[in-house]
Amino acid sequence: MGPELERLVMLLAKLPGLGPRSARRAALALLQKREGLMRPLADAIAAAADAIRPCSVCGNLDTTDPCGLCADERRDRATICVVETVGDLWALERAHAHKGLYHVLGGTLSALAGQRPEDLSVEPLIRRAGSGEVREVILATSATVDGQTTAHYLAGRLRDTGVAVTRLAHGVPVGGERGYLDDGTLAAALASRRPA
Amino acid sequence: MGPELERLVMLLAKLPGLGPRSARRAALALLQKREGLMRPLADAIAAAADAIRPCSVCGNLDTTDPCGLCADERRDRATICVVETVGDLWALERAHAHKGLYHVLGGTLSALAGQRPEDLSVEPLIRRAGSGEVREVILATSATVDGQTTAHYLAGRLRDTGVAVTRLAHGVPVGGERGYLDDGTLAAALASRRPA
Repeated sequence: MGPELERLVMLLAKLPGLGPRSARRAALALLQKREGLMRPLADAIAAAADAIRPCSVCGNLDTTDPCGLCADERRDRATICVVETVGDLWALERAHAHKGLYHVLGGTLSALAGQRPEDLSVEPLIRRAGSGEVREVILATSATVDGQTTAHYLAGRLRDTGVAVTRLAHGVPVGGERGYLDDGTLAAALASRRPA
Repeated sequence: MGPELERLVMLLAKLPGLGPRSARRAALALLQKREGLMRPLADAIAAAADAIRPCSVCGNLDTTDPCGLCADERRDRATICVVETVGDLWALERAHAHKGLYHVLGGTLSALAGQRPEDLSVEPLIRRAGSGEVREVILATSATVDGQTTAHYLAGRLRDTGVAVTRLAHGVPVGGERGYLDDGTLAAALASRRPA
């Protein structure tokens, strides 16, 4: 392998989901589809790096600032859904689960990883929530200890703004079998039971 | 997601080892390391696409033609190891298993996939084997039905050149436990048993 190839494999191996072995396979696949995949991919990466920026309002990644979601007048501007990452935002958008706006925290509080409130986009969220336009903030952080700690912290910080603060419901995943569920989810699903 | 991002995810998803979901994760990881990973990767892909070409002698991928292996005078020029893909060649090189030259077929014969001898680098191999410089051709095609069919076909074609034609030994993988071996490998290992 020449230095160009070694460098390519080394960089590909840094992508999540690819290790050293699969990075070599990916490099080979690229070289075998030089015009059909390799050059287009180099151009697409460079074009995306040029064009895509974090939204200064919500933290979403888009080619415009404010992003397409923040600029969309049809969306419910009174509801903000707080997520940890842009990936979470995309997942909710794919599910068409939320018609309001978003706020990307950039992670969770974490004693282990040393992530403090000032490392996350907390102050901008408090400012947005207190702007008078917002009626509800939905905390959609993940159901991990760190995610729930973060939600609890944010609920406390948001109390003074007077907006309603809600969390995602816990329960049996749609299509999920009870046998595969952990005890915590089962207990939460039972505690939140509703009339049939 | 804007069109730049959709195009990036779509192209990343064509890499072996990445699906639509992991391609989105990879695109996000790139955007979060714009200067440290995203731009270097775009440059590395473009540089490799410019610099790396198939060797006109053996089919290896390198920045020179003939490739570094074919040009290396210290290698045994009387022995050619025939492999299916450049990936196989790299694996043998990493194992420091072969001190001679290589020949990349570009696949195997396959009735199902409609791969015929003229679709592979067979004629160049026959010419190289008949050049007078070569004493042995090692058939290192894989131990699949197609790989073994290809080896059998090549052995027949190489008979007239007068060079010795050998195949890789089958047997228990080094470090392998007998309990995890398939019957075919076990039978081959037993048939090829050697004095201890």
